[in-house]
Amino acid sequence: MSTIAPCADPESNPRVKAVFDDIRATRQTDFINNMWRYLAFDPDLLEQTWRDVKRIMATPSALDPLTKELLYIAVSVANGCGYCVHSHTASARAKGMSPQQHAELMSIVSLAARTNHLATALQVPVDPVFDRG
Amino acid sequence: MSTIAPCADPESNPRVKAVFDDIRATRQTDFINNMWRYLAFDPDLLEQTWRDVKRIMATPSALDPLTKELLYIAVSVANGCGYCVHSHTASARAKGMSPQQHAELMSIVSLAARTNHLATALQVPVDPVFDRG
Amino acid sequence: MSTIAPCADPESNPRVKAVFDDIRATRQTDFINNMWRYLAFDPDLLEQTWRDVKRIMATPSALDPLTKELLYIAVSVANGCGYCVHSHTASARAKGMSPQQHAELMSIVSLAARTNHLATALQVPVDPVFDRG
Amino acid sequence: MSTIAPCADPESNPRVKAVFDDIRATRQTDFINNMWRYLAFDPDLLEQTWRDVKRIMATPSALDPLTKELLYIAVSVANGCGYCVHSHTASARAKGMSPQQHAELMSIVSLAARTNHLATALQVPVDPVFDRG
Amino acid sequence: MSTIAPCADPESNPRVKAVFDDIRATRQTDFINNMWRYLAFDPDLLEQTWRDVKRIMATPSALDPLTKELLYIAVSVANGCGYCVHSHTASARAKGMSPQQHAELMSIVSLAARTNHLATALQVPVDPVFDRG
Amino acid sequence: MSTIAPCADPESNPRVKAVFDDIRATRQTDFINNMWRYLAFDPDLLEQTWRDVKRIMATPSALDPLTKELLYIAVSVANGCGYCVHSHTASARAKGMSPQQHAELMSIVSLAARTNHLATALQVPVDPVFDRG
Repeated sequence: MSTIAPCADPESNPRVKAVFDDIRATRQTDFINNMWRYLAFDPDLLEQTWRDVKRIMATPSALDPLTKELLYIAVSVANGCGYCVHSHTASARAKGMSPQQHAELMSIVSLAARTNHLATALQVPVDPVFDRG
Repeated sequence: MSTIAPCADPESNPRVKAVFDDIRATRQTDFINNMWRYLAFDPDLLEQTWRDVKRIMATPSALDPLTKELLYIAVSVANGCGYCVHSHTASARAKGMSPQQHAELMSIVSLAARTNHLATALQVPVDPVFDRG
Repeated sequence: MSTIAPCADPESNPRVKAVFDDIRATRQTDFINNMWRYLAFDPDLLEQTWRDVKRIMATPSALDPLTKELLYIAVSVANGCGYCVHSHTASARAKGMSPQQHAELMSIVSLAARTNHLATALQVPVDPVFDRG
Repeated sequence: MSTIAPCADPESNPRVKAVFDDIRATRQTDFINNMWRYLAFDPDLLEQTWRDVKRIMATPSALDPLTKELLYIAVSVANGCGYCVHSHTASARAKGMSPQQHAELMSIVSLAARTNHLATALQVPVDPVFDRG
Repeated sequence: MSTIAPCADPESNPRVKAVFDDIRATRQTDFINNMWRYLAFDPDLLEQTWRDVKRIMATPSALDPLTKELLYIAVSVANGCGYCVHSHTASARAKGMSPQQHAELMSIVSLAARTNHLATALQVPVDPVFDRG
Repeated sequence: MSTIAPCADPESNPRVKAVFDDIRATRQTDFINNMWRYLAFDPDLLEQTWRDVKRIMATPSALDPLTKELLYIAVSVANGCGYCVHSHTASARAKGMSPQQHAELMSIVSLAARTNHLATALQVPVDPVFDRG
């Protein structure tokens, strides 16, 4: 079930092929997951999305690669995106997430959801000491 | 603005005082932030919430303390909880989050939100290879 | 802070006055809360919203009035609507919500949020026995 | 998978039949999509929902029909409703949405999600000039 | 589709077996639904989740058992958790929810969502009289 | 209240000044709203966010400028972002949104939220005819 029809031969479009080639090279795999195959219906959207995913997720930076995947999963769970939860859980495993770390991620995500709802239900005022702005 | 009236002297209740004492001892500070002051309207709720926050966030485990705070912020942003975003950003800073790490957290959270919405809008089918269950 | 300017004298519009009169008669109070004052910028929107709020919330039905308010709070918390959390917590108190019931509502809402996030994070398949359709 | 059992012969109920007839006449098609078939378990709910969908979406007004469908999709994506994303994407196509407009809708929805999360993460204060109320 | 592989024989782990036994005894049924089977990948997470679900949902308290299930459904709908909507709708039926009450729950949940979005869109200021804090 | 301290003199940083200059030139105004002032704490984040906002929102395209702002508001309401609701409502007014169009936007956003919650509550199966993928 999808709202668009993925192209039968997306790489016949040279812009799509260039992105797919870069995904394969960056990730060192021949596998192109559905997210990219479906985004390929619009080469602009595909290029811009991949450019930022690559820059933010696949470039060495101040946070290590596994932490970045865990953060991605956390946001995706809270936003209720089943596709992203699946794909980034797979990525986190590929980057070394242990079952214990996975269970701990579950604990933190569900704890945060719980206190998010409590703070919203009580409409707790922000302590002045937390204000930086 | 809040939906409950915080107690003027919450520590006159010995169960509340015990929790507040444990918060001060665990965090090595005299500061009790509003979340706990407001939850104190119901000692059961206060005790159970603190018990789990302490166990999950303040006990050495498979994820380091800063990573746990970053995850907490990520979920709180996606759930739109202003109070929790404020309090856990302060905690993350106290645990060493650099401005560069903060900016990177912003990049990842907003990138995930973006692709979450794209995957939902396209209703991208989950790749069979991601299925573990 | 609001995105529209509330009318200085909303009841100079007879359609607005008719709705405000019905709110006062239905609720047995002279108080018109801001939600209605702001919706009054468009009499159609005001009439249609009040018509359904009155029909669903202020008409005897299969659920008692307090239960309906608790449900309203629960949805409003999960949707992060501070205004509605405030106004319906006040309504629930006016309809007899005890502090113990309020605390229990907090427990249930935060427990549901917690397991909602767990089920989404694990992408737990729905048991066939739950399917009715 | 559904939480209710759709009626085998919903149009044996004259109130359901009247709504279905009006849907067919309004939309100029014999097709009744599942949303209405499932809502038919409660004729009140069916009538009230259709009455408002018809009034808001199928009556000439200040916004053109395609814009209304695009807005419906945008909200449905942000609320994570797969059913509504599917049904309103189909409606938008039927009302002339081009692939280019679809791609642009994706760009705007995902951009808004991205800056929504940034503004929430930074807790940016609203500029006084934006306040109307 | 799931992000973890459920254990083939979860009750070979005595901690999992103890929880499953308590679920069966508490609910007076042999049926263990998938939520618990999947959480069993981590006995800590399983024990802590069940402990709180049992305490809050299966212990006599200030709210009756059916009201608690209705609240659980309301939050789960707003959070977009299909699994929890399915499982708690089944529980509500088992606890006596009538079709009329189910339809009324639908009316209240969708009405609250509607006014939640209106209040957020208009950014209606909270009336001072609603403030307790 | 904010989680970061905005720079006292952001334009002393040439990269920030370049973005602010481009915002002023693109929008034909001297006003820089808080979103950009706060994002300026990290020039990378500022540049990348503005680059995409400019490309998507301020470049002639398949959707007219007012429709784009209405879509932005719709997503921001559903995501509960008060800042973005305020700023894009102001932008929509500047681009010609009439009070009637504003009221209609409110009707559509709240109608979509209502049926989103109904479809999720009933877990309505997607009609096969809607599937394109």
